[in-house]
Amino acid sequence: MKQMGKKKLLLALLLFSGGFILYFVWIQNTFEFPTIVHSLRTAYQTNMKSDPRWTWRCHNERCERHIKKENEKSASLITCNMLCGQPKLWPFPTGSLYVSEDSVTFFYHQISVLYFAKNPVRSLLEQSFAVFNQNVINMVPTTYKTSYKSDIKRFLVVVSVTHPNQNKLTLSTDESYTLAMNMNGDDLVATIKAGTYFGARHGLETLSQLIWWDDHPPEGILRTVKAANIQDAPVFAYRGLMIDTARNFMPVDSLKRTLIGMSMNKLNIFHWHMTDSQSFPFSTPSVPKMAQYGAYGPDMVYTPQDIQELVEFAYHLGIRVVIEIDTPAHAGNGWNWGPEEGLGDLAVCVNEQPWNLYCGEPPCGQLNPLNPNTYEVLEKLYKDIIRLTGETELFHMGGDEVNLDCWGQFLKGINYTDFHDLWGLFTMKALEKLASANGGNLPSNMIFWSSNLSRRPYITRYMDKSKTIIQIWSPSLWSDTYDILADGYRVIMSHVDAWYLDCGFGRWRETGEAACDPYRSWQTMYLHRPWQESMDKNLVVGAEACLWSEQLDAASLDARLWPRTSAFAERVWSDPEKDVKMYTIKESVYTRLTIQRDRLISRGLGAEALWPLWCSQNPGLCL
Amino acid sequence: MKQMGKKKLLLALLLFSGGFILYFVWIQNTFEFPTIVHSLRTAYQTNMKSDPRWTWRCHNERCERHIKKENEKSASLITCNMLCGQPKLWPFPTGSLYVSEDSVTFFYHQISVLYFAKNPVRSLLEQSFAVFNQNVINMVPTTYKTSYKSDIKRFLVVVSVTHPNQNKLTLSTDESYTLAMNMNGDDLVATIKAGTYFGARHGLETLSQLIWWDDHPPEGILRTVKAANIQDAPVFAYRGLMIDTARNFMPVDSLKRTLIGMSMNKLNIFHWHMTDSQSFPFSTPSVPKMAQYGAYGPDMVYTPQDIQELVEFAYHLGIRVVIEIDTPAHAGNGWNWGPEEGLGDLAVCVNEQPWNLYCGEPPCGQLNPLNPNTYEVLEKLYKDIIRLTGETELFHMGGDEVNLDCWGQFLKGINYTDFHDLWGLFTMKALEKLASANGGNLPSNMIFWSSNLSRRPYITRYMDKSKTIIQIWSPSLWSDTYDILADGYRVIMSHVDAWYLDCGFGRWRETGEAACDPYRSWQTMYLHRPWQESMDKNLVVGAEACLWSEQLDAASLDARLWPRTSAFAERVWSDPEKDVKMYTIKESVYTRLTIQRDRLISRGLGAEALWPLWCSQNPGLCL
Repeated sequence: MKQMGKKKLLLALLLFSGGFILYFVWIQNTFEFPTIVHSLRTAYQTNMKSDPRWTWRCHNERCERHIKKENEKSASLITCNMLCGQPKLWPFPTGSLYVSEDSVTFFYHQISVLYFAKNPVRSLLEQSFAVFNQNVINMVPTTYKTSYKSDIKRFLVVVSVTHPNQNKLTLSTDESYTLAMNMNGDDLVATIKAGTYFGARHGLETLSQLIWWDDHPPEGILRTVKAANIQDAPVFAYRGLMIDTARNFMPVDSLKRTLIGMSMNKLNIFHWHMTDSQSFPFSTPSVPKMAQYGAYGPDMVYTPQDIQELVEFAYHLGIRVVIEIDTPAHAGNGWNWGPEEGLGDLAVCVNEQPWNLYCGEPPCGQLNPLNPNTYEVLEKLYKDIIRLTGETELFHMGGDEVNLDCWGQFLKGINYTDFHDLWGLFTMKALEKLASANGGNLPSNMIFWSSNLSRRPYITRYMDKSKTIIQIWSPSLWSDTYDILADGYRVIMSHVDAWYLDCGFGRWRETGEAACDPYRSWQTMYLHRPWQESMDKNLVVGAEACLWSEQLDAASLDARLWPRTSAFAERVWSDPEKDVKMYTIKESVYTRLTIQRDRLISRGLGAEALWPLWCSQNPGLCL
Repeated sequence: MKQMGKKKLLLALLLFSGGFILYFVWIQNTFEFPTIVHSLRTAYQTNMKSDPRWTWRCHNERCERHIKKENEKSASLITCNMLCGQPKLWPFPTGSLYVSEDSVTFFYHQISVLYFAKNPVRSLLEQSFAVFNQNVINMVPTTYKTSYKSDIKRFLVVVSVTHPNQNKLTLSTDESYTLAMNMNGDDLVATIKAGTYFGARHGLETLSQLIWWDDHPPEGILRTVKAANIQDAPVFAYRGLMIDTARNFMPVDSLKRTLIGMSMNKLNIFHWHMTDSQSFPFSTPSVPKMAQYGAYGPDMVYTPQDIQELVEFAYHLGIRVVIEIDTPAHAGNGWNWGPEEGLGDLAVCVNEQPWNLYCGEPPCGQLNPLNPNTYEVLEKLYKDIIRLTGETELFHMGGDEVNLDCWGQFLKGINYTDFHDLWGLFTMKALEKLASANGGNLPSNMIFWSSNLSRRPYITRYMDKSKTIIQIWSPSLWSDTYDILADGYRVIMSHVDAWYLDCGFGRWRETGEAACDPYRSWQTMYLHRPWQESMDKNLVVGAEACLWSEQLDAASLDARLWPRTSAFAERVWSDPEKDVKMYTIKESVYTRLTIQRDRLISRGLGAEALWPLWCSQNPGLCL
């Protein structure tokens, strides 16, 4: 700067900075004085903005950073990335795929929409499009004024859905879609075709990923690709994320934010581990004492309205809510009012010490399988859940980690040779109540956590394979997975060694070991592919990442979930094979995931950084 | 609820809920209809608020949770905790300590202040008191109206400082204070006495920790203790936190939030690792090309004004800012414009590949020790730093991880038998420039990271022990620490295996290992006490926790720092001995740290949860 003559400087400023001229000249003459530091800042940043030093060029399918040559038209990193190499979609589409390497600029007010869909799907689409449209608007800085021109006259989005009445998301719902983008005269037309609302919604999500804010100085502009042809459908029907709201309470807003993140990654099951032995935040008029005794505090509850609101919010985002009231273990606080009401112990060994004799972590608690009132309460809760979620295809029964010593010690007057049979009996009675709560018939599928009851010989004794899905959380090398599949049960994969998001933060108690170190990195989550081996893939309904909340609450929820859950989501939507060689991940995945992380940030989710920004700005050089 | 007669219910509501009566009765009659779910929520929460089920009683120095007996006056957990057992101060005071187990209620507008201090300290105190006062005001929910009465007439804070002119924080500054609280008639008087502003500020911080929002339903009230007598002073003079803003950029706001967290924990050194080989965000008019070539983008810079603003902000919080421009290694991007300007290579092997031949992580880069222009630039930067921070007692030189192969390969025409001597030569020349930048004399102390140059035999050859402090980041069991102390050098402890906050998140590159697994839990950070053994404690200036930013940016900064840095802060302020037995931490520390975490949250820092909330609500039962 100092080497430029003042005349040259003025000329440059005229071209680049408009109204800052006089201001700037003044600074040039006086900047030794500390009082003008503020002015310097404005001037310097203006200067940098008007004269970016770097540009990116597409070379060998990656964007290389170069010092800009004089008079060279420079490109921003995001624009280079979006038009270079593999399309920057996440999760990656599974069908045929073409995305143009040319872009067009546009303004958001040029977007309009046309529906080929009858009600009731049409009104769903209208809301979904409103979300899409708002996301595009939000890309534009609020103080923004541009002098760029739009390359197009209109940006028309056409959405058609062939089955307007298939509006319930199930394991057999067609979630596929196609997205075609083409110029039609001066108009850019994006056509999304899907069998159902859920496919169309995914299509809009994909379309939003083809639109970006080109932050190229001085002003920036919205861009999208000039043409595209995408066919896409998920590999697995069940693509879940579990959140535990019992160890620490998560406010409804933070769960909504999580649902937004899920929808951006095309996950479709929010498994809500609502209650546990620590707390029972479900506040229901049918059994008000549950939350009165079990909630952490009067404001730390989920009311029926909260739940309905969340279920509806999720539904519009293409996500089902599966609520789990874990039983018979992982149930203590909230169940400890029976004696006061003359109902006897609904649960036993609640808060018992020393806890390590009766449970895996403090506080202990297990339902009392001998008390008929326990089942009466269960039926009420089951009825609530079915009513509030509207979910009758999937019902999560919990069922993990029963501690037989808790029952053996605290249930008096019984004598089982094998307490697993008492556990089995409890399960069958609970299912009876579930059927009754559901109007006489069981829901289509009951999900149970893998446990000793889902092991041989008990599994076949107590669980009907036609209606049971086992959610396998055991380590991936344990024989459970293979036995369960060999016995013909369907499974959801949640291997603790790959897909547990809470591990790696050391111990939270004074004594003992960390629960499940180490941290599962996004690479670990991405590379885990338990169905690669000789396995009947028809029995694999899908997979689920799990976040237990012993060591976090809303303050760090986003960072714990994202972008690792995005990595998991691509595994279960696309199940990429070619990209994954033994323990290495292609460079393009790093680039795509970095861009997906930026999308999460731009939609208000506090996703973690993957690596130094230098690596994003220099694709391929951090390997 | 259903078992109560309507009359009884009305009576209960009259007593507890005031205006909600008619509303509530209507709900009782109609709640089967889904349309009234919203009303239910209000009613139910109101009901819970007006009738807390739990109370806490102090027993054996811990708060035990009980179901409230009829007509029993209940206590909130925080009020029980604040008046039960060890005072809930963090870091724990080191001198004599008495805190009353009685509390008084008050309103924030009853607080007034009286200063016994002349200018310039008086105006500093005024600002500090304003911060204190605002923190108290912020404890009160904005929609709050109370019917509670204040127990006192006035809450008078008296602050006296005996040395009004000792306003520069140095390693020999007296940071001690005393705090006495007593009733004087109807007035509560809190008297803070200190030698310096810095001690008085700590006293105000401690006073704020003796004030809490008692969230006892239905309305809540501010409370403080009725009497206290506290003497306090830090064990170590240097209590630091290092943040790396080069791997990923941290906006000024997030650094300010970090400074607030530091001040709440009485840390007093913000070591700003501002630049590294990845980026050079320091935007200075004295060498504008540094940021033009080295910043991640035009907005990702620290201007002189940003820095001055931060330094001033920190100063009021009792914190010094020590800026490190790391050299001669960890310097690449930002230094790569020399040839363009005709100055030759200021740095070599910048961004060289394969990086693992020339540096520890991509991208590489080391200053060129043979180019005289390198030192000219250094002098300008040093001058900037001294001017902007006003810091002449401590100057951080960097100096870690020089890769001799980078120089051996890329410096032509030289032939060293031992390249360590070239490194030593560089260091001596850099110190010459530093002296020149500082008006001819070196700053009082230069800090160097431990490195091969701080090992025998080089350390005594190139580093003057009277002016050198070694920041030891090697693992605690390495011999470095002992050798350096044996040779009479002063040290700052930053052992990587205990006090590195960034470890445990797996690898960020495609290949290789995680940088420094596992995660250092707060317990690890708290228990580490490297000066316990036969060590000359006079040479231990203090300690510093370090956060390198390869795998985080502002989105997860708070969660990575807090509450672990609080744990570290108590180690270095109080250096507790009695609490620490072999690898166990007293229950009371868990309780105190939980309350400190809540304070961080209430002041807007996204600190992580330590454990399930059940453990906080049931002190002593999660061990």
